[in-house]
Amino acid sequence: MTIQEMISRVNPHVRSLQAYHLHPEDVPVKLNQNENPFDWPAPIKDEILAFCRKRPWNRYPNFIPEDLKQALAAFVGYTADHVIAGNGSNEMLLITLLSLTQSEGTVIICQPTFTVYKLLSSGMGRNVQEVFLDENMCYRCDRICEASLNHPEALIIISSPNNPTGSALSEKEIRRILETHRGFFLLDQAYVEFGGYNALPLVKEYPNLLITRTFSKALRGAGVRMGYLIGTPDIIREMNKIKLPYNINFFSERVAIVLLSHREEINTAISYITKQRERVFSFLQTLPFEQIYPTEANFILIRTNRKDSLFVHLKQDGILVRDVSSYPMLENCLRINIGTEEENTHLMRALSGFFSHTQ
Amino acid sequence: MTIQEMISRVNPHVRSLQAYHLHPEDVPVKLNQNENPFDWPAPIKDEILAFCRKRPWNRYPNFIPEDLKQALAAFVGYTADHVIAGNGSNEMLLITLLSLTQSEGTVIICQPTFTVYKLLSSGMGRNVQEVFLDENMCYRCDRICEASLNHPEALIIISSPNNPTGSALSEKEIRRILETHRGFFLLDQAYVEFGGYNALPLVKEYPNLLITRTFSKALRGAGVRMGYLIGTPDIIREMNKIKLPYNINFFSERVAIVLLSHREEINTAISYITKQRERVFSFLQTLPFEQIYPTEANFILIRTNRKDSLFVHLKQDGILVRDVSSYPMLENCLRINIGTEEENTHLMRALSGFFSHTQ
Repeated sequence: MTIQEMISRVNPHVRSLQAYHLHPEDVPVKLNQNENPFDWPAPIKDEILAFCRKRPWNRYPNFIPEDLKQALAAFVGYTADHVIAGNGSNEMLLITLLSLTQSEGTVIICQPTFTVYKLLSSGMGRNVQEVFLDENMCYRCDRICEASLNHPEALIIISSPNNPTGSALSEKEIRRILETHRGFFLLDQAYVEFGGYNALPLVKEYPNLLITRTFSKALRGAGVRMGYLIGTPDIIREMNKIKLPYNINFFSERVAIVLLSHREEINTAISYITKQRERVFSFLQTLPFEQIYPTEANFILIRTNRKDSLFVHLKQDGILVRDVSSYPMLENCLRINIGTEEENTHLMRALSGFFSHTQ
Repeated sequence: MTIQEMISRVNPHVRSLQAYHLHPEDVPVKLNQNENPFDWPAPIKDEILAFCRKRPWNRYPNFIPEDLKQALAAFVGYTADHVIAGNGSNEMLLITLLSLTQSEGTVIICQPTFTVYKLLSSGMGRNVQEVFLDENMCYRCDRICEASLNHPEALIIISSPNNPTGSALSEKEIRRILETHRGFFLLDQAYVEFGGYNALPLVKEYPNLLITRTFSKALRGAGVRMGYLIGTPDIIREMNKIKLPYNINFFSERVAIVLLSHREEINTAISYITKQRERVFSFLQTLPFEQIYPTEANFILIRTNRKDSLFVHLKQDGILVRDVSSYPMLENCLRINIGTEEENTHLMRALSGFFSHTQ
């Protein structure tokens, strides 16, 4: 076999994907990945690391991570049979696609949104139907329901609050989609601790609703790669059949259990960030952007026709933001996440400098 | 929607799976999961944990874990573009199925073998063709090649040494399959550090060969969940497109890098285990089993018509082995992995007791 022959045998849906990519940049103020600016305090880390030191590394994790599932279940107010845990929400998305869609099935997503929904769905050969947000980057519930009626067995995937726009669906809108749709609805609530309607109570009303959550944002654990999914136990049982056995290592498992026991610590950081968001948002409104979009998340989307020079100006000042201008509808847009008070002050000063200089 | 309606909308290939399951049993001598009996020494753990303590948990891992890939590449004697890393060989298997098979494509596996090959392939709707081992649990290369000729575009998945039989393919057999087969060949070498032909050199000759390896056996890291795959860079590039971004957390990444730097430590444990395997194997030959199968791995497969009472006898003596009698062709079979010298002595004493009592 030649290499060319073998490349031609790769799954064509995968072959035609553009690889999702992010180049690492080393700057002091990272406002580009929607991370939480706060690390966990050393004593909490030490508690976890002391466990890891004793725990035999040569032994498999438990087949079912019961303690972890209990901890997650308690955190979201359900029993453990409502929960699956994995390596980030990404793994939850993959399990959902594998278990709740079929080879030529349809996936309905909104645009612009988190890149991985379309990447994975297309790579798995699913037919991707895109519903665009309106010009204010708000969800168009009527259009989503229209797409649902055209594809009643589709999997709908929506993030609320949405990355990279910050837009959220209201309870009424989520209920309307759930009532209209005959297929499954995966609601990615990676940012819900920062705002927007938290749809957890709806899981007991709607067996077609699945919610993913993550440790990467409000829970300050992006490096730990932990995500989880909440749904009706009968559906969770089916989804578990295609979950990889022993998917979570003992470190992630312990991290999740211990962090969830520090609710105060979590909530303090969340209110700090939402307060800082209001501060940064108000400040941004004083600057001559084309548009600043309302947000329920820990980041703010802005549009400026001087996007490139602003990006460079900030980077030269040691601040990295995310250029999202290649997303559908987001020409000239940057996404800036909320940092610490000092980082935000630094950002605001850099922005002032940019606009006073160049105007 | 009712729950019944929603269950009926689950992917039928997943719905019809029997969930893979293992009930936890708490016994002092665990010889049931092919784990390595040796944990890593505390100073090596401490080096890793000190890194984890400093590393900000709120920050994502690098998009490409370059240091990890370099370390793995150096370990196997290739460059980093030959390697993908993930959460256990299981994730490598999933990525392979997603990228190198199509929705109604064929997967050729041998039987009996590691359960997850068939579970995942069937769950993804692939047509699974099974080639049975011979009565000595040896691979039938002629039959494998025959299946390949009938399904030239299939993905062949074979583990060598094979779990749960211990059988291995020779270099000549692997080359014959690679020469015959026009599709991809995934060779799972989870146990290759304990014996059998190591096919790494063939990667540069055959672009259709992919090899998975793991940290769960010889590398004493089953709890860490780290596996990797080696293949031709052009194929690896395609496979990477469907790999989940940030699939590995900073802990696993650091563990792998540090452990691989302790080659002496690794090799010492491997020769200890292979020496103990010869000791246990010779002893087993003195007992009235129906059959003891030759093995290249860190476990031994035996057949006895007193399988159930032997299993219970061992368990009462604090030793857990694996009942593999529900695998195809393995009626009355138990799989026993090699433990420490003391554990093996304990096992041998318990086996002597069983046969002297009951004969």
